[in-house]
Amino acid sequence: MSIGNIMVGQSGGPTSVINASLAGVFKAARDLGAKHVYGMRNGVEGLLEGRCVDMLEHVKTDADIEILKRTPASYLGTCRFKLGDPAEKEADYAKIFAQLKKLDVKSYFYIGGNDSMDSINKMSGYAAANGVDMRFMGIPKTIDNDLVITDHTPGFGSASKYIASTFKELIRDAAAFNEKTVLVVEIMGRNAGWLTAASILAAGEDNEGPDMILLPETPLCEASFIKAVGEKLKEKNTLFIAVSEGVKCLDGEYLSSRGGASVTRDAFGHVALSGAGHNLKELIKRELGIKRIRSIEFSAIQRCAAHISSRTDVEEAFLAGQHGARCAADGMTSKMVVFKRLADEPYAMALDTAPVSEIANAEKVVPAEWIDAANYFVRKEFVTYALPLIQGELPPLMINGVPRHLVLKK
Amino acid sequence: MSIGNIMVGQSGGPTSVINASLAGVFKAARDLGAKHVYGMRNGVEGLLEGRCVDMLEHVKTDADIEILKRTPASYLGTCRFKLGDPAEKEADYAKIFAQLKKLDVKSYFYIGGNDSMDSINKMSGYAAANGVDMRFMGIPKTIDNDLVITDHTPGFGSASKYIASTFKELIRDAAAFNEKTVLVVEIMGRNAGWLTAASILAAGEDNEGPDMILLPETPLCEASFIKAVGEKLKEKNTLFIAVSEGVKCLDGEYLSSRGGASVTRDAFGHVALSGAGHNLKELIKRELGIKRIRSIEFSAIQRCAAHISSRTDVEEAFLAGQHGARCAADGMTSKMVVFKRLADEPYAMALDTAPVSEIANAEKVVPAEWIDAANYFVRKEFVTYALPLIQGELPPLMINGVPRHLVLKK
Repeated sequence: MSIGNIMVGQSGGPTSVINASLAGVFKAARDLGAKHVYGMRNGVEGLLEGRCVDMLEHVKTDADIEILKRTPASYLGTCRFKLGDPAEKEADYAKIFAQLKKLDVKSYFYIGGNDSMDSINKMSGYAAANGVDMRFMGIPKTIDNDLVITDHTPGFGSASKYIASTFKELIRDAAAFNEKTVLVVEIMGRNAGWLTAASILAAGEDNEGPDMILLPETPLCEASFIKAVGEKLKEKNTLFIAVSEGVKCLDGEYLSSRGGASVTRDAFGHVALSGAGHNLKELIKRELGIKRIRSIEFSAIQRCAAHISSRTDVEEAFLAGQHGARCAADGMTSKMVVFKRLADEPYAMALDTAPVSEIANAEKVVPAEWIDAANYFVRKEFVTYALPLIQGELPPLMINGVPRHLVLKK
Repeated sequence: MSIGNIMVGQSGGPTSVINASLAGVFKAARDLGAKHVYGMRNGVEGLLEGRCVDMLEHVKTDADIEILKRTPASYLGTCRFKLGDPAEKEADYAKIFAQLKKLDVKSYFYIGGNDSMDSINKMSGYAAANGVDMRFMGIPKTIDNDLVITDHTPGFGSASKYIASTFKELIRDAAAFNEKTVLVVEIMGRNAGWLTAASILAAGEDNEGPDMILLPETPLCEASFIKAVGEKLKEKNTLFIAVSEGVKCLDGEYLSSRGGASVTRDAFGHVALSGAGHNLKELIKRELGIKRIRSIEFSAIQRCAAHISSRTDVEEAFLAGQHGARCAADGMTSKMVVFKRLADEPYAMALDTAPVSEIANAEKVVPAEWIDAANYFVRKEFVTYALPLIQGELPPLMINGVPRHLVLKK
């Protein structure tokens, strides 16, 4: 079975390596003889509007592919659009499938997270119900690492490498002053603490790493936390805290929207969502009177800092894209590419697939047995798991002192 | 004249390359036969408290020196202590000089900015007035690039490379969505806009770069600015704004502490210094009703992101340290090492020295003729000046996926 013409899209929050997966799909499809490798601009949303390009007209050389692998964010553009239920949104599906038919698309790829797999699931269900001969494959992507079945997701390793490396540098910076110092760093992850936990990878022979790690998996008791901070500050002069943006307090409220004395309001009286890090800083300042305390957000930088990508992550993202294309060429459909870990050390990984229906809308959090909640920390099992994923570097092509990216003109 | 025993200290805000200058002083002093290379812990403040180490006991190999060059922040620790006037603080000077005499120090080095050069100036003045035979040399350091006489300062190039590279990645990230988007990035520089101007280095064949650059050199008229933003958003879907933390409004107030409708207050009614970026974001949101608008602070990361140092900057910082040591060995005193630019393209630079008295407490801002105030932008003369300084990379020694640093145990 030939791969035929293909359609590929990217969805959800960008990462440092989502383009490596795109490069993998593209290269495999090209090498398998696809006549057209269509890319949807801004995911399904763009496809609905008929906005597509033939990537073969834009990505012309193997050098282009290598630069694409090193380009952060979504080359094709992305969206947060969620495809509705086929029963309710029949017109959307009819429009999309008419377009796919017109372009003679035989294989359809969507690179994304939970929602994207839901989209693949619905599309393949619609195709089956309507007798359309087309393959649908999902390629995993999310810095959040929260997809089930797969050992991990492309994007997580590079974000973790950025977080660990930058945290390490910030600890050197903060420790340079001989003053009582608290540094709070806010890290992404609304419901799963994988990225925040990765801050522990800053620790080593030459660095103490974070002292406390607050994950969304463990509700925060503010009183106990303040007591623990106070005790640690009796023992040491510096305290480094990693906090997930998604931490909730005991009463279920997000720390980021915490009311009470620390809330900030604008002139109209609206509560400002100041962020978990900011609120934690204010809490410590208020309760313990620490003067030299700072909160830093890794913000969107942590998901697009391709200049310090993990080589393991980039290569795996690329392989996942290639594998997806080959599986589609073999006639497989309605599956997502997954990673199976064969060994931690030395690290060995195998590619496999799993039904998208089992992945769509499910969420994987950090296992409870890897969390040392009493000490606001994570256990060594997490380190064993995460360390292989940040290994190696794939430096960008540097031109004029800055990374070169492959960019699709609008 | 031999260099004798030396004393070296680091002062002020850390940078990615202040340790490269320390490595330069250390290596030259060692190679010139210094028996002891004393380092003051936490600058003059530590010296006053008698806290010194002999670096020869800690930095043992040339490999150590290479790792030190790649280690951000201050290996010896830093301080913000300002030496008082010798007439008023005689006891401090007596204490310091007694200690230097005890350790038989012949050459004294201080790596820092304006304040540090003031410190060198006072120390050498005291020595001359009291017949002490000792050389005093300043080594320039500041990401702010605001020292006079020297063409530029070590630290600026690496911070600029981080700012340009990360800004470029953030533009890719923000442009991935097909929505009207405004991104405000706050960059360091209280009185001088050198670093904020460096955001323009993100622009190139593959990137539009920032649309607007707000420097502290130009007072901000908020009404005109909002008008300009509104017009730009008619032409394009995305707007990227670089704003210095030190921008002042027409009435002289810092944008970061701007009152009025955008001010945030805590529950006690205290105005929160939310930062220039945050306030600019609030202003645009309020006046133009943009929904997808975000502000990001490069925070302390921009001064310690040694993982993306400029090789030009690291090597020049190292050379400056070595040159200072050699000049002291030749009997020179009361001088700071300066850079003289011989050519922009291809870049050529020479080392020289200038009297610290002419550098202490003076400040160099971005020249008015390099600023295009009417268009909230900088001119190509700035690019010609800054581009050579961010060239080349000096990747860290990566161990376990993160940069390795040389660290002095407390």
